[in-house]
Amino acid sequence: METQKIGYLGPKGTFTKMAVDSLFDGGEFVSFDTIPACLDAVEAGEIDTGVVPLENAIEGSVHLTIDYLIHQVNQAIIAELTVPIRQHLLTHPEYDEHDITEIHSHSHAIAQCHQYLHKHYPEAAIHYTASTGRAAEIVREKGVHAAAIGNHLAAEMNGLNILEGNIHDYDNNHTRFAVVQKEPKTLKVKDQPVKKHKTTVMVTLPQDYVGALHQVLAAFAWRKMNLSKIESRPMKTGLGNYFFLVDVDQPYDQVLFPGVQQELEALGCRLKVLGTYPSYEIETSSPVMK
Amino acid sequence: METQKIGYLGPKGTFTKMAVDSLFDGGEFVSFDTIPACLDAVEAGEIDTGVVPLENAIEGSVHLTIDYLIHQVNQAIIAELTVPIRQHLLTHPEYDEHDITEIHSHSHAIAQCHQYLHKHYPEAAIHYTASTGRAAEIVREKGVHAAAIGNHLAAEMNGLNILEGNIHDYDNNHTRFAVVQKEPKTLKVKDQPVKKHKTTVMVTLPQDYVGALHQVLAAFAWRKMNLSKIESRPMKTGLGNYFFLVDVDQPYDQVLFPGVQQELEALGCRLKVLGTYPSYEIETSSPVMK
Repeated sequence: METQKIGYLGPKGTFTKMAVDSLFDGGEFVSFDTIPACLDAVEAGEIDTGVVPLENAIEGSVHLTIDYLIHQVNQAIIAELTVPIRQHLLTHPEYDEHDITEIHSHSHAIAQCHQYLHKHYPEAAIHYTASTGRAAEIVREKGVHAAAIGNHLAAEMNGLNILEGNIHDYDNNHTRFAVVQKEPKTLKVKDQPVKKHKTTVMVTLPQDYVGALHQVLAAFAWRKMNLSKIESRPMKTGLGNYFFLVDVDQPYDQVLFPGVQQELEALGCRLKVLGTYPSYEIETSSPVMK
Repeated sequence: METQKIGYLGPKGTFTKMAVDSLFDGGEFVSFDTIPACLDAVEAGEIDTGVVPLENAIEGSVHLTIDYLIHQVNQAIIAELTVPIRQHLLTHPEYDEHDITEIHSHSHAIAQCHQYLHKHYPEAAIHYTASTGRAAEIVREKGVHAAAIGNHLAAEMNGLNILEGNIHDYDNNHTRFAVVQKEPKTLKVKDQPVKKHKTTVMVTLPQDYVGALHQVLAAFAWRKMNLSKIESRPMKTGLGNYFFLVDVDQPYDQVLFPGVQQELEALGCRLKVLGTYPSYEIETSSPVMK
């Protein structure tokens, strides 16, 4: 097998990179600065596989992933990864850590640790950085009296101590990543448990009419197809026009899904399958676990 | 009437501040660094009213708004604002603008202008900043060969030229903001047209069972209540437990909504009204319009 070439939303030290390291068994890894740049590279055939955040990520605008997959490129979701978000307070190993007067991180990470910071460091000055990785670099360079908020990979890469682990306000905070391909190629993955198989479909309504969504869901419900997520998103053709993204908790099959599709098309809807795929749940290898 | 005290997700020059300026007729405006900090200040009574992004914002993690409103504070949505996202290429007025070698902005803004940058400035170095406002400051300080991506307010506040307007890849890209209060106080707003009245409810399911969402929607559908948005969100109690946020396109009333609530409670669901409110659609006063 050729070396698999995997692109991801970088930079190094992000949660996306942690997800990539946990799932893939070898390969060439390419960091991209934005979600569109990563998906464009998949589209152009420069990389075989892309990994981008789908939901609840720190670094990326997640609606952008869905919108780009639907409007700009023609790619399938071939796997999903779920990774817990764990934020730590990182300090320079050579300095006294008990007098922190400034805290650096991405605004989303600061917001995720809002209550912790309010309780323990109400007087510290908050400095916003472009990424959690950049915050860790600043603390490495600056050292004294400074702390960063970031994950354990950012700590490792910058030689920082984890002064306190798991300082995020919410437990059970996860990020979902989509693994996408244009041409189907086999993935070489580590021995990770597959939690379940899912299928993601997009349903477009002919117009905004009362009860339309209810009719759409009826086509799934009477077949006893369980939906684990549903979200309405605006079409880019103006306000008030919506499509629906639906996650079905079963693999695509040749009976139930075509049946749903025929029923919906008879109602004037369109259904597009964005992917049918295994869902991996990754526990990070962080030494700091709650 | 006392001076209204309005908090918003800052810093100055953000899309949130543009929304605030467009809607409110006077008052004292207080900038907050994070969504939780703004909502905490409303909760503590330090400000009367908070304005935070609900959907598709550049600066904020938007799921955070919903999660914080549901889990951390007890506040009602009393109005909604929709504002178009328009990104411009900003340069220093004293330098030749035709030799741009570096572009500064927040990663989300860079991503939103991905195709424009790819076409017009494929060779420029991209520098990520903590906000679009900060990017404009850098260009003001640095000047030559540098451009920022940001809105017209950031241009005005930093004395920059709009070299090219509306460089975002998608038209019809809007951000929704929620106006929240703990104690109901009258808002003093400019003469803005109310597009419609909406009611946002949260529905919690007793367990993850096949067809549950379909049953929930049936309670709205047979009453001919139109839903303009529906989104499932994970509860913070673990993966696989979801609640649903539903936007209903009508004001709360004493017949239909209590009827829905009784039906859903009979099914073992809980329904909580997060707010019933006017929806304002703001056109920015930008001189650069498509």
